[in-house]
Amino acid sequence: MTPSSTLGKVYLVGAGPGAADLITVRGADLLAKADVVFHDALVEEAMLAYCPQAEKIAVGKRCGKHSTAQKFINKRLVDAAQKHQVVVRLKGGDPMIFGRADEEITELEEASIEVEIVPGITAALAAAATLKQSLTLRGVARSVAFSTQAKATDSTSLPLPTADTVVIYMGRDEAISIAHQLIGQGRPTTLPVRIIEAISTKRERSLALTLGEMAAGCATDWFDGQAPALLLVGAVFGNRLENSEILANSRLSA
Amino acid sequence: MTPSSTLGKVYLVGAGPGAADLITVRGADLLAKADVVFHDALVEEAMLAYCPQAEKIAVGKRCGKHSTAQKFINKRLVDAAQKHQVVVRLKGGDPMIFGRADEEITELEEASIEVEIVPGITAALAAAATLKQSLTLRGVARSVAFSTQAKATDSTSLPLPTADTVVIYMGRDEAISIAHQLIGQGRPTTLPVRIIEAISTKRERSLALTLGEMAAGCATDWFDGQAPALLLVGAVFGNRLENSEILANSRLSA
Repeated sequence: MTPSSTLGKVYLVGAGPGAADLITVRGADLLAKADVVFHDALVEEAMLAYCPQAEKIAVGKRCGKHSTAQKFINKRLVDAAQKHQVVVRLKGGDPMIFGRADEEITELEEASIEVEIVPGITAALAAAATLKQSLTLRGVARSVAFSTQAKATDSTSLPLPTADTVVIYMGRDEAISIAHQLIGQGRPTTLPVRIIEAISTKRERSLALTLGEMAAGCATDWFDGQAPALLLVGAVFGNRLENSEILANSRLSA
Repeated sequence: MTPSSTLGKVYLVGAGPGAADLITVRGADLLAKADVVFHDALVEEAMLAYCPQAEKIAVGKRCGKHSTAQKFINKRLVDAAQKHQVVVRLKGGDPMIFGRADEEITELEEASIEVEIVPGITAALAAAATLKQSLTLRGVARSVAFSTQAKATDSTSLPLPTADTVVIYMGRDEAISIAHQLIGQGRPTTLPVRIIEAISTKRERSLALTLGEMAAGCATDWFDGQAPALLLVGAVFGNRLENSEILANSRLSA
Protein backbone atom coordinates (compact mmCIF):
# COMPACT_ATOMS: atom_id res chain seq x y z
CA MET A 1 0.00 0.00 0.00
CA THR A 2 1.48 3.33 -1.02
CA PRO A 3 1.20 6.23 1.39
CA SER A 4 -1.05 8.16 -0.99
CA SER A 5 -3.65 5.38 -1.09
CA THR A 6 -4.26 5.89 2.63
CA LEU A 7 -4.99 9.59 2.27
CA GLY A 8 -8.46 10.67 3.23
CA LYS A 9 -10.65 13.17 1.45
CA VAL A 10 -11.52 16.63 2.70
CA TYR A 11 -14.97 18.08 2.16
CA LEU A 12 -15.39 21.83 2.47
CA VAL A 13 -19.02 22.06 3.45
CA GLY A 14 -21.13 25.20 3.62
CA ALA A 15 -22.98 25.26 6.95
CA GLY A 16 -25.40 27.89 5.72
CA PRO A 17 -26.47 31.00 7.64
CA GLY A 18 -26.89 29.48 11.10
CA ALA A 19 -30.01 27.35 11.53
CA ALA A 20 -29.08 23.66 11.67
CA ASP A 21 -31.64 22.62 9.06
CA LEU A 22 -30.43 25.15 6.50
CA ILE A 23 -27.43 22.97 5.67
CA THR A 24 -27.88 20.87 2.52
CA VAL A 25 -28.88 17.22 2.71
CA ARG A 26 -25.47 16.37 1.20
CA GLY A 27 -23.71 18.39 3.88
CA ALA A 28 -25.69 16.73 6.68
CA ASP A 29 -24.97 13.27 5.23
CA LEU A 30 -21.24 14.03 5.16
CA LEU A 31 -21.32 15.24 8.75
CA ALA A 32 -22.98 11.93 9.71
CA LYS A 33 -20.08 9.92 8.30
CA ALA A 34 -17.17 12.22 9.11
CA ASP A 35 -14.27 11.02 11.20
CA VAL A 36 -13.35 14.56 12.14
CA VAL A 37 -15.11 17.91 11.71
CA PHE A 38 -13.32 21.25 11.79
CA HIS A 39 -15.97 23.90 12.29
CA ASP A 40 -16.07 27.67 12.52
CA ALA A 41 -16.54 29.01 16.02
CA LEU A 42 -19.85 30.54 14.89
CA VAL A 43 -21.48 27.24 13.87
CA GLU A 44 -24.47 26.47 16.10
CA GLU A 45 -24.39 23.55 18.53
CA ALA A 46 -27.52 22.08 16.95
CA MET A 47 -25.67 21.55 13.69
CA LEU A 48 -22.98 19.50 15.38
CA ALA A 49 -25.71 17.08 16.46
CA TYR A 50 -25.51 15.75 12.87
CA CYS A 51 -22.09 14.27 13.70
CA PRO A 52 -22.18 12.67 17.17
CA GLN A 53 -19.57 10.12 16.03
CA ALA A 54 -17.00 12.66 14.85
CA GLU A 55 -14.17 14.37 16.61
CA LYS A 56 -15.25 18.02 16.58
CA ILE A 57 -12.69 20.80 16.52
CA ALA A 58 -13.60 24.50 16.64
CA VAL A 59 -11.26 26.59 14.51
CA GLY A 60 -10.86 30.17 13.42
CA LYS A 61 -13.33 32.93 12.82
CA ARG A 62 -15.92 33.20 10.13
CA CYS A 63 -14.69 36.53 8.89
CA GLY A 64 -11.21 35.13 8.45
CA LYS A 65 -9.22 38.08 9.67
CA HIS A 66 -6.43 36.08 11.24
CA SER A 67 -4.00 34.87 8.63
CA THR A 68 -1.83 33.01 11.11
CA ALA A 69 -4.87 31.09 12.28
CA GLN A 70 -5.76 30.36 8.66
CA LYS A 71 -2.35 28.82 8.00
CA PHE A 72 -2.75 26.70 11.10
CA ILE A 73 -6.19 25.50 9.89
CA ASN A 74 -4.73 24.60 6.49
CA LYS A 75 -2.04 22.52 8.17
CA ARG A 76 -4.48 20.76 10.46
CA LEU A 77 -6.68 19.79 7.49
CA VAL A 78 -3.69 18.21 5.75
CA ASP A 79 -2.69 16.37 8.94
CA ALA A 80 -6.25 15.11 9.46
CA ALA A 81 -6.51 13.74 5.90
CA GLN A 82 -3.30 11.79 6.50
CA LYS A 83 -4.96 10.03 9.45
CA HIS A 84 -8.68 9.90 8.61
CA GLN A 85 -10.77 8.94 5.59
CA VAL A 86 -13.55 11.52 5.84
CA VAL A 87 -12.60 14.99 6.99
CA VAL A 88 -15.21 17.75 6.97
CA ARG A 89 -14.32 21.42 7.11
CA LEU A 90 -17.63 23.07 8.03
CA LYS A 91 -17.65 26.75 7.05
CA GLY A 92 -20.32 29.36 7.82
CA GLY A 93 -22.49 30.37 4.85
CA ASP A 94 -21.16 29.20 1.49
CA PRO A 95 -17.48 28.22 1.29
CA MET A 96 -16.92 30.06 -2.00
CA ILE A 97 -17.99 33.56 -0.91
CA PHE A 98 -15.85 35.48 1.60
CA GLY A 99 -14.67 32.17 3.01
CA ARG A 100 -10.96 31.89 2.18
CA ALA A 101 -11.59 28.41 0.84
CA ASP A 102 -8.93 28.91 -1.84
CA GLU A 103 -6.17 28.87 0.70
CA GLU A 104 -7.43 25.59 2.12
CA ILE A 105 -7.95 24.04 -1.32
CA THR A 106 -4.50 25.07 -2.53
CA GLU A 107 -2.78 23.66 0.53
CA LEU A 108 -4.69 20.37 0.30
CA GLU A 109 -4.03 19.96 -3.43
CA GLU A 110 -0.35 20.63 -2.90
CA ALA A 111 -0.39 17.73 -0.44
CA SER A 112 -2.17 15.55 -3.06
CA ILE A 113 -5.29 15.37 -0.92
CA GLU A 114 -8.61 15.18 -2.72
CA VAL A 115 -11.01 18.05 -2.01
CA GLU A 116 -14.70 18.35 -2.69
CA ILE A 117 -16.83 21.42 -2.11
CA VAL A 118 -20.44 21.29 -0.93
CA PRO A 119 -22.15 24.65 -1.37
CA GLY A 120 -24.13 26.35 1.38
CA ILE A 121 -26.84 28.96 1.75
CA THR A 122 -25.12 32.32 1.81
CA ALA A 123 -26.38 34.88 4.33
CA ALA A 124 -27.86 37.24 1.71
CA LEU A 125 -30.26 34.59 0.45
CA ALA A 126 -31.31 33.61 3.96
CA ALA A 127 -31.94 37.29 4.67
CA ALA A 128 -34.11 37.61 1.57
CA ALA A 129 -36.13 34.61 2.77
CA THR A 130 -36.62 36.15 6.21
CA LEU A 131 -37.64 39.50 4.70
CA LYS A 132 -39.82 37.73 2.12
CA GLN A 133 -38.31 40.01 -0.48
CA SER A 134 -36.62 38.88 -3.69
CA LEU A 135 -33.23 40.44 -4.32
CA THR A 136 -34.11 40.73 -8.00
CA LEU A 137 -37.44 41.92 -9.29
CA ARG A 138 -38.74 42.45 -12.79
CA GLY A 139 -38.67 46.11 -13.71
CA VAL A 140 -36.87 47.06 -10.48
CA ALA A 141 -33.68 45.03 -10.10
CA ARG A 142 -32.12 42.56 -12.47
CA SER A 143 -28.78 42.26 -10.67
CA VAL A 144 -27.59 41.76 -7.12
CA ALA A 145 -24.05 42.09 -5.81
CA PHE A 146 -22.48 40.70 -2.66
CA SER A 147 -19.53 42.72 -1.46
CA THR A 148 -17.34 43.55 1.46
CA GLN A 149 -16.15 47.04 2.22
CA ALA A 150 -12.40 47.31 1.76
CA LYS A 151 -9.71 49.92 1.91
CA ALA A 152 -7.07 50.50 -0.76
CA THR A 153 -3.44 50.59 0.34
CA ASP A 154 -3.72 54.38 0.71
CA SER A 155 -6.73 53.66 3.01
CA THR A 156 -9.29 55.21 0.67
CA SER A 157 -12.38 53.07 0.20
CA LEU A 158 -12.48 50.88 -2.88
CA PRO A 159 -15.62 51.43 -4.97
CA LEU A 160 -18.68 49.31 -4.25
CA PRO A 161 -20.26 47.44 -7.17
CA THR A 162 -23.06 49.07 -9.16
CA ALA A 163 -25.66 46.29 -9.08
CA ASP A 164 -29.31 47.19 -8.56
CA THR A 165 -29.41 45.46 -5.18
CA VAL A 166 -26.25 45.51 -3.08
CA VAL A 167 -25.64 43.31 -0.06
CA ILE A 168 -22.65 44.12 2.11
CA TYR A 169 -21.20 41.38 4.28
CA MET A 170 -19.37 42.23 7.49
CA GLY A 171 -20.32 45.88 7.05
CA ARG A 172 -21.32 46.77 10.59
CA ASP A 173 -18.31 48.88 11.52
CA GLU A 174 -18.32 50.70 8.18
CA ALA A 175 -22.07 51.24 7.84
CA ILE A 176 -21.90 55.05 7.77
CA SER A 177 -19.04 55.15 5.28
CA ILE A 178 -20.77 52.56 3.08
CA ALA A 179 -23.95 54.64 3.02
CA HIS A 180 -22.01 57.75 2.03
CA GLN A 181 -20.28 55.83 -0.75
CA LEU A 182 -23.53 54.50 -2.14
CA ILE A 183 -25.03 57.99 -2.08
CA GLY A 184 -21.87 59.24 -3.79
CA GLN A 185 -22.54 56.70 -6.56
CA GLY A 186 -25.83 58.47 -7.20
CA ARG A 187 -28.21 56.39 -5.14
CA PRO A 188 -31.02 58.37 -3.49
CA THR A 189 -31.00 58.98 0.26
CA THR A 190 -34.54 57.61 0.35
CA LEU A 191 -33.40 54.20 -0.89
CA PRO A 192 -34.57 51.45 1.50
CA VAL A 193 -32.00 49.59 3.58
CA ARG A 194 -32.43 46.46 5.67
CA ILE A 195 -29.94 45.34 8.27
CA ILE A 196 -30.08 41.81 9.65
CA GLU A 197 -28.06 40.28 12.43
CA ALA A 198 -27.69 36.59 13.34
CA ILE A 199 -29.75 35.51 10.34
CA SER A 200 -31.87 32.38 10.78
CA THR A 201 -30.93 31.93 14.44
CA LYS A 202 -32.98 32.60 17.58
CA ARG A 203 -31.09 35.86 18.01
CA GLU A 204 -32.07 37.17 14.57
CA ARG A 205 -32.95 40.89 14.53
CA SER A 206 -33.67 43.23 11.65
CA LEU A 207 -33.88 46.95 11.12
CA ALA A 208 -35.54 48.96 8.35
CA LEU A 209 -34.23 52.38 7.47
CA THR A 210 -33.18 54.50 4.51
CA LEU A 211 -29.76 55.04 3.02
CA GLY A 212 -29.84 58.63 4.29
CA GLU A 213 -30.62 57.43 7.80
CA MET A 214 -27.77 54.94 7.67
CA ALA A 215 -25.43 57.69 6.49
CA ALA A 216 -26.56 59.80 9.46
CA GLY A 217 -25.54 57.04 11.86
CA CYS A 218 -29.07 55.94 12.81
CA ALA A 219 -28.07 52.27 12.86
CA THR A 220 -25.01 52.70 15.05
CA ASP A 221 -26.68 52.15 18.41
CA TRP A 222 -28.84 49.34 17.09
CA PHE A 223 -26.05 46.86 16.34
CA ASP A 224 -25.39 44.40 19.11
CA GLY A 225 -21.75 44.07 18.16
CA GLN A 226 -21.55 40.31 18.68
CA ALA A 227 -23.56 38.80 15.83
CA PRO A 228 -22.56 39.04 12.17
CA ALA A 229 -24.57 41.73 10.38
CA LEU A 230 -25.63 42.07 6.77
CA LEU A 231 -26.57 45.35 5.06
CA LEU A 232 -29.04 45.06 2.19
CA VAL A 233 -29.64 48.10 -0.01
CA GLY A 234 -31.99 48.54 -2.93
CA ALA A 235 -35.32 49.63 -4.31
CA VAL A 236 -36.64 46.06 -4.01
CA PHE A 237 -37.01 46.61 -0.28
CA GLY A 238 -39.63 49.26 -0.89
CA ASN A 239 -41.56 46.87 -3.07
CA ARG A 240 -44.24 45.41 -0.86
CA LEU A 241 -45.77 47.12 2.12
CA GLU A 242 -46.26 43.62 3.52
CA ASN A 243 -42.60 43.78 4.48
CA SER A 244 -43.59 46.18 7.21
CA GLU A 245 -45.42 43.37 8.98
CA ILE A 246 -42.10 41.63 9.65
CA LEU A 247 -40.30 44.82 10.41
CA ALA A 248 -43.00 46.57 12.43
CA ASN A 249 -41.16 46.06 15.69
CA SER A 250 -37.79 46.94 14.32
CA ARG A 251 -38.51 50.15 12.40
CA LEU A 252 -36.53 53.17 13.53
CA SER A 253 -38.77 55.20 15.80
CA ALA A 254 -37.43 58.41 14.28
CA MET B 1 -64.58 27.61 12.77
CA THR B 2 -63.93 30.61 10.56
CA PRO B 3 -62.89 30.02 6.96
CA SER B 4 -59.47 31.56 7.56
CA SER B 5 -58.62 29.04 10.27
CA THR B 6 -58.79 26.27 7.70
CA LEU B 7 -56.31 27.91 5.35
CA GLY B 8 -53.08 26.04 4.77
CA LYS B 9 -49.61 27.48 4.60
CA VAL B 10 -47.51 27.80 1.46
CA TYR B 11 -43.76 27.20 1.57
CA LEU B 12 -41.68 28.57 -1.29
CA VAL B 13 -38.75 26.20 -1.21
CA GLY B 14 -35.49 26.53 -3.13
CA ALA B 15 -34.71 23.23 -4.83
CA GLY B 16 -31.09 24.21 -5.40
CA PRO B 17 -29.18 23.76 -8.65
CA GLY B 18 -30.38 20.30 -9.62
CA ALA B 19 -28.88 17.46 -7.58
CA ALA B 20 -31.48 16.06 -5.18
CA ASP B 21 -29.20 16.24 -2.15
CA LEU B 22 -28.39 19.91 -2.67
CA ILE B 23 -31.76 20.94 -1.26
CA THR B 24 -31.63 22.03 2.39
CA VAL B 25 -32.60 19.67 5.20
CA ARG B 26 -35.52 22.03 5.95
CA GLY B 27 -36.68 21.87 2.35
CA ALA B 28 -36.48 18.06 2.26
CA ASP B 29 -38.40 17.83 5.57
CA LEU B 30 -41.16 20.05 4.16
CA LEU B 31 -41.38 17.94 1.01
CA ALA B 32 -41.80 14.86 3.23
CA LYS B 33 -44.86 16.34 4.92
CA ALA B 34 -46.41 18.24 2.01
CA ASP B 35 -49.95 17.54 0.86
CA VAL B 36 -49.24 18.98 -2.54
CA VAL B 37 -46.03 20.03 -4.31
CA PHE B 38 -45.95 22.43 -7.26
CA HIS B 39 -42.56 22.05 -8.90
CA ASP B 40 -40.71 23.62 -11.79
CA ALA B 41 -40.51 21.46 -14.88
CA LEU B 42 -36.72 21.43 -14.49
CA VAL B 43 -36.69 19.82 -11.03
CA GLU B 44 -35.08 16.35 -11.15
CA GLU B 45 -37.14 13.22 -10.57
CA ALA B 46 -34.82 12.18 -7.74
CA MET B 47 -35.86 15.22 -5.72
CA LEU B 48 -39.53 14.30 -5.92
CA ALA B 49 -38.64 11.03 -4.18
CA TYR B 50 -38.59 13.13 -0.98
CA CYS B 51 -42.38 13.48 -1.24
CA PRO B 52 -43.91 10.11 -2.23
CA GLN B 53 -47.06 11.00 -0.25
CA ALA B 54 -47.72 14.32 -2.00
CA GLU B 55 -49.71 15.20 -5.05
CA LYS B 56 -47.04 16.44 -7.46
CA ILE B 57 -47.85 19.04 -10.09
CA ALA B 58 -45.32 20.28 -12.68
CA VAL B 59 -45.77 23.97 -13.41
CA GLY B 60 -44.12 26.67 -15.46
CA LYS B 61 -40.57 27.22 -16.51
CA ARG B 62 -37.62 28.06 -14.35
CA CYS B 63 -36.71 31.12 -16.35
CA GLY B 64 -40.21 32.51 -15.87
CA LYS B 65 -40.75 33.95 -19.29
CA HIS B 66 -44.44 33.21 -19.48
CA SER B 67 -46.45 35.72 -17.51
CA THR B 68 -49.78 34.07 -18.25
CA ALA B 69 -48.44 30.81 -16.85
CA GLN B 70 -47.18 32.71 -13.79
CA LYS B 71 -50.65 34.11 -13.08
CA PHE B 72 -52.06 30.62 -13.37
CA ILE B 73 -49.46 29.29 -10.91
CA ASN B 74 -50.31 32.07 -8.45
CA LYS B 75 -53.98 31.15 -8.60
CA ARG B 76 -53.32 27.45 -8.18
CA LEU B 77 -51.22 28.11 -5.06
CA VAL B 78 -54.08 30.08 -3.51
CA ASP B 79 -56.56 27.35 -4.41
CA ALA B 80 -54.32 24.65 -2.96
CA ALA B 81 -53.90 26.48 0.35
CA GLN B 82 -57.68 26.65 0.65
CA LYS B 83 -57.85 22.85 0.47
CA HIS B 84 -54.58 21.60 1.99
CA GLN B 85 -52.54 22.36 5.11
CA VAL B 86 -49.01 22.06 3.72
CA VAL B 87 -48.43 23.33 0.21
CA VAL B 88 -44.89 23.40 -1.17
CA ARG B 89 -43.89 25.47 -4.17
CA LEU B 90 -40.54 23.99 -5.19
CA LYS B 91 -38.51 26.42 -7.26
CA GLY B 92 -35.19 25.81 -9.02
CA GLY B 93 -32.16 27.44 -7.37
CA ASP B 94 -33.03 30.00 -4.72
CA PRO B 95 -36.55 31.46 -4.74
CA MET B 96 -35.34 35.02 -4.16
CA ILE B 97 -33.02 35.36 -7.16
CA PHE B 98 -34.49 35.46 -10.67
CA GLY B 99 -37.43 33.43 -9.43
CA ARG B 100 -40.49 35.69 -9.59
CA ALA B 101 -41.31 34.72 -6.01
CA ASP B 102 -42.67 38.20 -5.33
CA GLU B 103 -45.64 37.67 -7.56
CA GLU B 104 -46.49 34.45 -5.75
CA ILE B 105 -45.96 35.98 -2.30
CA THR B 106 -48.09 39.03 -3.12
CA GLU B 107 -50.95 36.94 -4.43
CA LEU B 108 -50.88 34.63 -1.41
CA GLU B 109 -50.73 37.47 1.10
CA GLU B 110 -53.64 39.20 -0.60
CA ALA B 111 -55.61 36.00 -0.03
CA SER B 112 -54.52 36.02 3.67
CA ILE B 113 -52.49 32.86 3.19
CA GLU B 114 -49.36 32.48 5.27
CA VAL B 115 -46.13 32.17 3.28
CA GLU B 116 -42.71 31.03 4.39
CA ILE B 117 -39.56 31.03 2.25
CA VAL B 118 -36.87 28.37 2.48
CA PRO B 119 -33.70 29.46 0.69
CA GLY B 120 -31.89 27.28 -1.83
CA ILE B 121 -28.41 26.95 -3.33
CA THR B 122 -28.28 29.33 -6.25
CA ALA B 123 -26.58 28.09 -9.43
CA ALA B 124 -23.57 30.42 -9.15
CA LEU B 125 -22.52 28.92 -5.83
CA ALA B 126 -22.95 25.37 -7.08
CA ALA B 127 -20.80 26.31 -10.09
CA ALA B 128 -18.08 27.69 -7.83
CA ALA B 129 -18.12 24.40 -5.89
CA THR B 130 -17.79 22.37 -9.09
CA LEU B 131 -14.95 24.58 -10.34
CA LYS B 132 -13.33 24.57 -6.89
CA GLN B 133 -12.90 28.30 -7.28
CA SER B 134 -14.09 30.95 -4.83
CA LEU B 135 -16.04 33.79 -6.39
CA THR B 136 -14.27 36.21 -4.06
CA LEU B 137 -10.59 36.11 -3.31
CA ARG B 138 -8.40 38.32 -1.15
CA GLY B 139 -6.49 40.77 -3.30
CA VAL B 140 -8.31 39.72 -6.47
CA ALA B 141 -12.08 40.00 -5.99
CA ARG B 142 -14.02 41.32 -3.05
CA SER B 143 -17.39 41.48 -4.77
CA VAL B 144 -19.49 39.20 -6.94
CA ALA B 145 -22.63 40.11 -8.86
CA PHE B 146 -25.37 37.90 -10.22
CA SER B 147 -27.18 39.40 -13.18
CA THR B 148 -29.32 38.70 -16.16
CA GLN B 149 -28.82 40.39 -19.49
CA ALA B 150 -31.75 42.66 -20.29
CA LYS B 151 -32.80 45.10 -22.95
CA ALA B 152 -34.09 48.61 -22.31
CA THR B 153 -37.37 49.59 -23.92
CA ASP B 154 -35.41 51.00 -26.88
CA SER B 155 -33.79 47.53 -27.12
CA THR B 156 -30.32 48.73 -26.17
CA SER B 157 -28.62 46.56 -23.56
CA LEU B 158 -28.84 47.73 -19.97
CA PRO B 159 -25.43 48.00 -18.29
CA LEU B 160 -24.05 44.99 -16.45
CA PRO B 161 -22.91 45.48 -12.85
CA THR B 162 -19.29 46.37 -12.11
CA ALA B 163 -18.46 43.73 -9.50
CA ASP B 164 -15.07 42.02 -9.60
CA THR B 165 -16.63 38.66 -10.45
CA VAL B 166 -19.78 38.67 -12.59
CA VAL B 167 -22.08 35.69 -13.03
CA ILE B 168 -24.73 35.93 -15.72
CA TYR B 169 -27.78 33.73 -15.43
CA MET B 170 -29.70 32.66 -18.52
CA GLY B 171 -27.03 34.26 -20.70
CA ARG B 172 -26.60 31.58 -23.35
CA ASP B 173 -28.35 33.36 -26.21
CA GLU B 174 -26.66 36.68 -25.44
CA ALA B 175 -23.16 35.37 -24.72
CA ILE B 176 -21.45 37.32 -27.52
CA SER B 177 -23.21 40.58 -26.71
CA ILE B 178 -22.49 40.14 -22.99
CA ALA B 179 -18.77 39.63 -23.71
CA HIS B 180 -18.68 42.78 -25.84
CA GLN B 181 -20.39 44.74 -23.10
CA LEU B 182 -17.96 43.57 -20.45
CA ILE B 183 -15.02 44.45 -22.69
CA GLY B 184 -16.66 47.83 -23.28
CA GLN B 185 -16.67 48.35 -19.51
CA GLY B 186 -12.89 48.07 -19.61
CA ARG B 187 -12.37 44.41 -18.81
CA PRO B 188 -9.45 42.78 -20.63
CA THR B 189 -10.09 40.33 -23.48
CA THR B 190 -7.78 37.89 -21.66
CA LEU B 191 -10.09 37.73 -18.63
CA PRO B 192 -11.00 34.11 -17.85
CA VAL B 193 -14.57 32.94 -18.43
CA ARG B 194 -16.20 29.69 -17.34
CA ILE B 195 -19.48 28.45 -18.77
CA ILE B 196 -21.39 25.70 -17.01
CA GLU B 197 -24.51 23.89 -18.13
CA ALA B 198 -26.82 21.65 -16.07
CA ILE B 199 -24.87 22.34 -12.89
CA SER B 200 -24.71 19.51 -10.35
CA THR B 201 -26.59 17.06 -12.56
CA LYS B 202 -25.30 14.09 -14.56
CA ARG B 203 -25.44 16.23 -17.68
CA GLU B 204 -23.14 18.91 -16.24
CA ARG B 205 -20.59 20.29 -18.72
CA SER B 206 -18.17 23.17 -18.45
CA LEU B 207 -16.07 25.22 -20.80
CA ALA B 208 -13.04 27.41 -20.13
CA LEU B 209 -12.28 30.33 -22.41
CA THR B 210 -11.42 34.02 -22.34
CA LEU B 211 -13.69 37.01 -22.61
CA GLY B 212 -12.20 37.76 -26.04
CA GLU B 213 -12.95 34.22 -27.19
CA MET B 214 -16.53 34.50 -25.95
CA ALA B 215 -16.90 37.82 -27.80
CA ALA B 216 -15.63 36.09 -30.96
CA GLY B 217 -18.39 33.51 -30.70
CA CYS B 218 -16.18 30.59 -29.65
CA ALA B 219 -18.83 29.29 -27.23
CA THR B 220 -21.71 29.36 -29.66
CA ASP B 221 -21.37 25.82 -30.99
CA TRP B 222 -20.60 24.41 -27.56
CA PHE B 223 -23.97 25.12 -25.92
CA ASP B 224 -26.37 22.23 -26.03
CA GLY B 225 -29.38 24.52 -26.07
CA GLN B 226 -31.47 22.44 -23.66
CA ALA B 227 -29.83 22.86 -20.28
CA PRO B 228 -29.67 26.15 -18.39
CA ALA B 229 -26.25 27.78 -18.75
CA LEU B 230 -24.33 30.08 -16.46
CA LEU B 231 -21.55 32.45 -17.56
CA LEU B 232 -18.90 33.23 -14.92
CA VAL B 233 -16.41 36.01 -15.62
CA GLY B 234 -13.52 37.22 -13.53
CA ALA B 235 -9.85 37.16 -12.64
CA VAL B 236 -10.53 34.59 -9.90
CA PHE B 237 -10.85 31.92 -12.58
CA GLY B 238 -7.22 32.38 -13.50
CA ASN B 239 -6.23 31.90 -9.91
CA ARG B 240 -5.23 28.30 -9.57
CA LEU B 241 -3.83 26.16 -12.34
CA GLU B 242 -5.46 23.25 -10.52
CA ASN B 243 -8.69 24.40 -12.15
CA SER B 244 -7.36 23.02 -15.38
CA GLU B 245 -7.61 19.52 -13.97
CA ILE B 246 -11.39 19.79 -13.97
CA LEU B 247 -11.55 21.63 -17.23
CA ALA B 248 -8.91 19.66 -19.14
CA ASN B 249 -11.48 17.91 -21.25
CA SER B 250 -13.56 20.95 -21.87
CA ARG B 251 -10.94 23.54 -22.82
CA LEU B 252 -11.42 25.13 -26.22
CA SER B 253 -9.04 23.40 -28.59
CA ALA B 254 -8.27 26.69 -30.30
